[in-house]
Amino acid sequence: MRSLELSEFILTRLDGTGGQPHDDTPIRRSAHARNRETPLHRQIYRIVRSAILEQRLLPGARLPSSRDLSADLGLSRNTVIAALNELLAEGYLVAIRGSGTYVVDSLPDAARAEALERSPGGTTPAGGRSLSARGQLLTRRSGAEHSEVQPFVPGVLEVAEFPFQVWARLQAKHWRYLDRNLLDYGNAGGYVPLRRAIAQQLALSRGVKVSPDQVLITSGTQQAIDLVARMLTDPGDLAWVEDPCYWGAQRALQAASLVLRPVPVDEEGLNPGASDWWHPPRLVYVTPSHQYPLGHVMSVARRKALLEFAARSGAWIFEDDYDNEVHYTGKPYAALQGMDGQARVIYSGTFSKVMYPGVRLGFLVVPADLVAAFNTGLYDLYRPGQLILQAALTDFINEGHMAALIRRLRVAYKARRDTLAAQIRAALGNSVTITGTDAGVHMCLTFRDQSVDDTRIAEHCSLARLQVRPLSNYYAGGAGSSGLVIGYAYVPEERVAPWAARLTDAIRAGLAESQRT
Amino acid sequence: MRSLELSEFILTRLDGTGGQPHDDTPIRRSAHARNRETPLHRQIYRIVRSAILEQRLLPGARLPSSRDLSADLGLSRNTVIAALNELLAEGYLVAIRGSGTYVVDSLPDAARAEALERSPGGTTPAGGRSLSARGQLLTRRSGAEHSEVQPFVPGVLEVAEFPFQVWARLQAKHWRYLDRNLLDYGNAGGYVPLRRAIAQQLALSRGVKVSPDQVLITSGTQQAIDLVARMLTDPGDLAWVEDPCYWGAQRALQAASLVLRPVPVDEEGLNPGASDWWHPPRLVYVTPSHQYPLGHVMSVARRKALLEFAARSGAWIFEDDYDNEVHYTGKPYAALQGMDGQARVIYSGTFSKVMYPGVRLGFLVVPADLVAAFNTGLYDLYRPGQLILQAALTDFINEGHMAALIRRLRVAYKARRDTLAAQIRAALGNSVTITGTDAGVHMCLTFRDQSVDDTRIAEHCSLARLQVRPLSNYYAGGAGSSGLVIGYAYVPEERVAPWAARLTDAIRAGLAESQRT
Repeated sequence: MRSLELSEFILTRLDGTGGQPHDDTPIRRSAHARNRETPLHRQIYRIVRSAILEQRLLPGARLPSSRDLSADLGLSRNTVIAALNELLAEGYLVAIRGSGTYVVDSLPDAARAEALERSPGGTTPAGGRSLSARGQLLTRRSGAEHSEVQPFVPGVLEVAEFPFQVWARLQAKHWRYLDRNLLDYGNAGGYVPLRRAIAQQLALSRGVKVSPDQVLITSGTQQAIDLVARMLTDPGDLAWVEDPCYWGAQRALQAASLVLRPVPVDEEGLNPGASDWWHPPRLVYVTPSHQYPLGHVMSVARRKALLEFAARSGAWIFEDDYDNEVHYTGKPYAALQGMDGQARVIYSGTFSKVMYPGVRLGFLVVPADLVAAFNTGLYDLYRPGQLILQAALTDFINEGHMAALIRRLRVAYKARRDTLAAQIRAALGNSVTITGTDAGVHMCLTFRDQSVDDTRIAEHCSLARLQVRPLSNYYAGGAGSSGLVIGYAYVPEERVAPWAARLTDAIRAGLAESQRT
Repeated sequence: MRSLELSEFILTRLDGTGGQPHDDTPIRRSAHARNRETPLHRQIYRIVRSAILEQRLLPGARLPSSRDLSADLGLSRNTVIAALNELLAEGYLVAIRGSGTYVVDSLPDAARAEALERSPGGTTPAGGRSLSARGQLLTRRSGAEHSEVQPFVPGVLEVAEFPFQVWARLQAKHWRYLDRNLLDYGNAGGYVPLRRAIAQQLALSRGVKVSPDQVLITSGTQQAIDLVARMLTDPGDLAWVEDPCYWGAQRALQAASLVLRPVPVDEEGLNPGASDWWHPPRLVYVTPSHQYPLGHVMSVARRKALLEFAARSGAWIFEDDYDNEVHYTGKPYAALQGMDGQARVIYSGTFSKVMYPGVRLGFLVVPADLVAAFNTGLYDLYRPGQLILQAALTDFINEGHMAALIRRLRVAYKARRDTLAAQIRAALGNSVTITGTDAGVHMCLTFRDQSVDDTRIAEHCSLARLQVRPLSNYYAGGAGSSGLVIGYAYVPEERVAPWAARLTDAIRAGLAESQRT
């Protein structure tokens, strides 16, 4: 049930109001005797509660704001707030600061009992069944909308370039000439030759200061963030995140019970204000090479300031270099880690963006004095394994397949980017600004008219079966820029032109609609 | 430096007190002019700090309690507490709730600077470099001693029975006839046919009440515990663990910032006392089918009591059925989950114990009303993948290879168990009791003479290049039973007899030594 549907559901069930009166006096015109004395807020409470109990409003559903509800219902905002507060107090709803009000995942016991009374076939589990606070946080505004992948969704790869035959052969080789040590847990931070290969590559291509034993093999960025958060921060510690920010990182940091402080980002990267500097965090999460989602590169001045601040305040910096391999300018930006004289940066990379998402292989580069502790943490928290996969990956790198793949990807993605950017410029002109095209596999459109509702534009695209993300969704406060995040990896080469035409049509239609209203 | 040594170190350095006065007045009798006006607590602060800076007290060392210290020093407890508080505030010590006070792993900056002043060759890294409290906890008494695997180490498998050719072929098949959907993240709780196969198997062999969508594929028990802890508990919540308990579980629960309460285990399983019942936990971790490490099966009465308690108190039960496949009595014990009418049990299993440790595949069975939330949490926390491996495992189960493997393992392990147990009985007679031999791949020896130092006996075995674990190590309080935990999976069949002879010789030598002293 969406926002307007909920309003209609309430309106059709309110007694005799017709949505007219803008006050909170009891309705006396009602034909239903039992409601004659029931105040409006109490009626709304009952209606919304029944919608939840009857699962018309599903667990995790986000409620419209009290402002929107009161407008739709034609009732005073106080009435709506009174009803919502009652539902919050009784545990039907939960309010997440800076995010909104949601239907709880598990009903309060009394409610469950009541619901079960009506369906006598059910059983009544005793004891509370609610998720923990961190569990509830995890299940809200989840990034897990993955099943409906459509063209232009950011973060999804084209895997057509990946040489599966080669990859299968390398794995088969290690199974044929089996080293049984590779069947055990990986307790030394990962397969040593792989750590060596990664260290060499990072030193050469990213200017990372690294010896092989500083490289730890992870199952990807989520695990890397989780490990760093648990080794270096405690519950309740402050973490700075970029605003706008990659959802997955926020989620992992929240799940580690950190308190997030969104710090603004501009063209030069993270741009902390005076009040931010006065709230030094324990951990800073940044994407300096290709800010996600805006695509900016952090300037040298900002890098220096952040490193100096970290050294002085004792903060740790998590550098998420998620798509460093794919760049189009010939000269990629070196990693922040390489500028860091005080070893405050933990550098993270992943193979999911060049191989295939499900491979689940990434790596961390940790300061030398933390290696032993991180190795222990990695082993004790996750019992990593998959050493045969790691051995195959080592061959894949050392035999030159990885370099060849990356070259092919750069060519393929560059062609898609050029086509898409050219068509957007031609069709939408200066009503949009494009950023973040120097690297990676997504670009960011910002609307010149910032009053445009980008969620609505994304819905237009969705109707055309194209999936882009509203830029405002990546902002913490809800007061972010209006724009779209568009991925171009998940679009076969020959389809880019026709689908880009469909995309610009949809955006144009959305923009036109927003000007009419 | 142990408790008494620290007291002596302090006593010899206190100015002119001789440990006599039971008050906190400044010492005026001192021969050292500069200390004439120094209060006792300040002196103790300085002495302990210098012990830390000079590494007489090593990072991670546990301090005696303030009560013990004040008794040893003959000073008031307030004096001692004042000194410790100062050291805590300045970051030399860290207090872990419910555990004790420890020397930090990394010194605070000022301390580091001061220490470095004395050794001018050192370099000064700026900013604090200490691990977080949870990070420090993770690196203490780590289970990560894995590299020195030797015969009889518990928890390590014999992989000789595993049909690697078949396994490699099944994987190769899925690479050859590639379904590209299997390259993505696994966002639906895992590969659906695998969840179906597991559900069928559990319903038949373990009496688990389960539909396929209640099965979530994990990367093993550590991830399963972590997911449950984060979805259902919050930092600071209480969790019951068995005493003695599997280390890995304790570690995962601590890393999720839970406060652990060790609850005693006897022959009937978990045996909470009155004070335990009065401290209802949010989560209970149990191994009811084969208690780790004692090997007992939880009795029906205890199962009922625990389930009823969970239903009443709203606690969740994590049932770790880690080695359910391998049993020797013909009739394995059904899972606790199957007796649970209130859906308070989350059931966990793993394939690491029958396939090979590095495969990293396990599963959770969660109550129906939690499935959606757990799916989201699994995806957002870990971005699982490896669907091709999951598809190969599905074939491995459905084509009967798993059942055949388990039959072979039962035969092989039973032979080893019988040989080992017989030789232990013959050589050690009634100086030991053997438990836990009905299932699994380890047994537990308990010494009749409970004054025996089992760590010392394990050292004797280690000198004979055999690795067993002291039973007392698995107890929380340090006041556990004296015995040995012996694995027999990691011993080739033809070696069991000679190595068992070496083992019993080593144990006998250890017991003889302990009687002499």
